[in-house]
Amino acid sequence: VRIGVLGTGTVGRTLAEKLVEVGHEVRMGSREAGNENAAEWAAAAGEAGSEGTFADAAEFGELVINATAGGASLEALRAAGAESLGGKVLVDVANPLDFSDGMPPTLTVSNDDSLGEQIQEAFPEARVVKALNTVNAAVMVAPGALDESTNLFVCGNDRAAKGQVIELLETFGWLSGDILDLGDISAARGTEMYLPLWLRMMGALETPQFNIRVVRGE
Amino acid sequence: VRIGVLGTGTVGRTLAEKLVEVGHEVRMGSREAGNENAAEWAAAAGEAGSEGTFADAAEFGELVINATAGGASLEALRAAGAESLGGKVLVDVANPLDFSDGMPPTLTVSNDDSLGEQIQEAFPEARVVKALNTVNAAVMVAPGALDESTNLFVCGNDRAAKGQVIELLETFGWLSGDILDLGDISAARGTEMYLPLWLRMMGALETPQFNIRVVRGE
Repeated sequence: VRIGVLGTGTVGRTLAEKLVEVGHEVRMGSREAGNENAAEWAAAAGEAGSEGTFADAAEFGELVINATAGGASLEALRAAGAESLGGKVLVDVANPLDFSDGMPPTLTVSNDDSLGEQIQEAFPEARVVKALNTVNAAVMVAPGALDESTNLFVCGNDRAAKGQVIELLETFGWLSGDILDLGDISAARGTEMYLPLWLRMMGALETPQFNIRVVRGE
Repeated sequence: VRIGVLGTGTVGRTLAEKLVEVGHEVRMGSREAGNENAAEWAAAAGEAGSEGTFADAAEFGELVINATAGGASLEALRAAGAESLGGKVLVDVANPLDFSDGMPPTLTVSNDDSLGEQIQEAFPEARVVKALNTVNAAVMVAPGALDESTNLFVCGNDRAAKGQVIELLETFGWLSGDILDLGDISAARGTEMYLPLWLRMMGALETPQFNIRVVRGE
């Protein structure tokens, strides 16, 4: 499958590298073609990797991943273009964290709205699936490196799109039974508002290499 | 130890019952003495249980638990009285959920503030410890009923107060190693903002009988 990855930060590069590893063709997009991170990644990726603008990547991908910073996501997606996103599965990995007042960050949108919902509303023809935003980049692509299997969450309005994303996540090593479907895209409020707890847990554990496992009762 | 429990809902009664079971004297407080739930609980609790106003319960307790609804907590604590709370450990179990617009609820305070912080600010002499607000009432007092051991979070500005609360939680069946200290009371933002995710997980799992376990990597 051809996949467009928007964003050249740690999350974008980590996902792009894994996607090539599991057999996809990946184009990484950034504000301007020739971004240093993107070019370096593409050179290392070989034939299956290429880079360009947000629009180039979105047009290229049969599936598109938003791995830009949360505060820049809507602008990046507008640059990618509604026409190129229409009808496609758009995996939103971003968290709307605002670090402008230092640590801890606040969320630029929360409580009665979420970045996932804003993206779905701005691009009604895209099939937005919120996923992977509850773990750090290394855990996203190597869930088996944790001591036990853990849970991941997906949400979105399009059931088939969620199914496609779950299949993709399985190729990263996630067990399908560990991927909880939380329902429609409004559940993005929950997974984004989990970030403040995630950040405090990271502080207490002194590592970002962790995730949660849901344990039920009788 | 003499413990005052503010609130007569499921959380207050469940905690009060457990506290009597593990050997404490408990006074349950509500807006007016003679509250039906409180009177019924006190009658069943025998000699170790009594009920009265918020002020009666706060005065009685060497340790006080806020188990009122989040939206009513500050008013209940004002009725309890700053003098009666001063110097005491005040365990804040409440979540600032607003159900007035139906499901899903929103939070009345979040992002750059929290109920825990508001309580600490309004009652600077109280030693506020946020705890137990990430699980439902049944799990609070019977963590062993889940299939594996899970994690609980405490936060607050007073280290000794947190230590006392952790000891109390151990008598409920929580393992001290599973209780994560997230730091000062501002971490209440994290544990309160976890509620929207908790509610969606409850929907997906079709039960409130669950909790999360933190899993680390190498």
